[in-house]
Amino acid sequence: MFSGAQVSLYPMSGNFAEIILDAVKGLNPYRDALRIETDDISTLMVGPPDVLFSAMRDLFVAAAKSGEHCVLSAAVSRGCPGEPDDPACGTSLLERDALPLLERIDAASKTVAAAPASDQPAAAQFSLYVMGIGDHMDEIYGCIDFLKRSGTFDRSKNFCTRLRGDAGAVFATIQEAFCRFGPPEGHVTLDITISANSPTKA
Amino acid sequence: MFSGAQVSLYPMSGNFAEIILDAVKGLNPYRDALRIETDDISTLMVGPPDVLFSAMRDLFVAAAKSGEHCVLSAAVSRGCPGEPDDPACGTSLLERDALPLLERIDAASKTVAAAPASDQPAAAQFSLYVMGIGDHMDEIYGCIDFLKRSGTFDRSKNFCTRLRGDAGAVFATIQEAFCRFGPPEGHVTLDITISANSPTKA
Repeated sequence: MFSGAQVSLYPMSGNFAEIILDAVKGLNPYRDALRIETDDISTLMVGPPDVLFSAMRDLFVAAAKSGEHCVLSAAVSRGCPGEPDDPACGTSLLERDALPLLERIDAASKTVAAAPASDQPAAAQFSLYVMGIGDHMDEIYGCIDFLKRSGTFDRSKNFCTRLRGDAGAVFATIQEAFCRFGPPEGHVTLDITISANSPTKA
Repeated sequence: MFSGAQVSLYPMSGNFAEIILDAVKGLNPYRDALRIETDDISTLMVGPPDVLFSAMRDLFVAAAKSGEHCVLSAAVSRGCPGEPDDPACGTSLLERDALPLLERIDAASKTVAAAPASDQPAAAQFSLYVMGIGDHMDEIYGCIDFLKRSGTFDRSKNFCTRLRGDAGAVFATIQEAFCRFGPPEGHVTLDITISANSPTKA
């Protein structure tokens, strides 16, 4: 298994570089568990999905606490056949047997309910892509059933689902969508957008 | 066929709202051909891929000409089985027969070479996702062959490919990747990020 993300942080502020550099300090606790490489477009983070989502959450929350309108955008991937297998990406989240869809929906909902709060409201939308299988929409519809029970569901949009709530619950919801749907060893990706402090009303 | 995108524009400036509102005027020539709906996270554009990519290009270029660091991020989709068929999304780009991979690579390269220049340099990265088929990586590797011949190829990264060049050629490259790879009637998506005026060196 190889898992990771290309992550970008966009503070809509003339002070964007300083906000990003400050927020990146929030990644320090994760540097032992993640491989992190930055260029001018995004930061690559490679490692187990649970560490990855905690790191993205803390990065986002640190930037959002600046009070400026900030967006985190990421392409998240696991099991891509074009990437080398990496033992550092192993996680019990994916090593379990593939449970029936209803059991996965139930387990995912419980995990979100137990997610610690960050005291940072967030609005998000994301798309889940399941590749290499013929019945990919069954997994997508199962995931949507989970999202509607997650407590963070806002509404369905074309191509994606909107969430809202505390950033802790929002990131937990997206992590569960990523880890519980699609085959455990399959190629699954996410396109995620998480926003704070927008001056536009939802 | 149903095709469209959820598009977001991020000017890293205290003046972001005005830059966005000005740039959105660049969409006016496309309003008859696209359905456009905006909320606080993204703007939905539904219509044929060729119109969609021209509209995204003009939106991005208009914002980038402000001189501020601007990023356009989009989730682009065609053929999603969960969306209604929409005749307004029809395009000859997808109605052709599925040609052998080598012929598609050749045709895509010629289209990029003929793309009009915008006089706006851009750096981009994107991921192409092909769903509902077992051999999705064949199409991905074919697309990567095209990208390496496109004239806009910068380098491969984990999970995505980086492009650089004039925004006209960059958007043309991504459009060709989207329209020529994956089955013509299949479910294909893109996760794209296009950046201008970054203070960080690539």
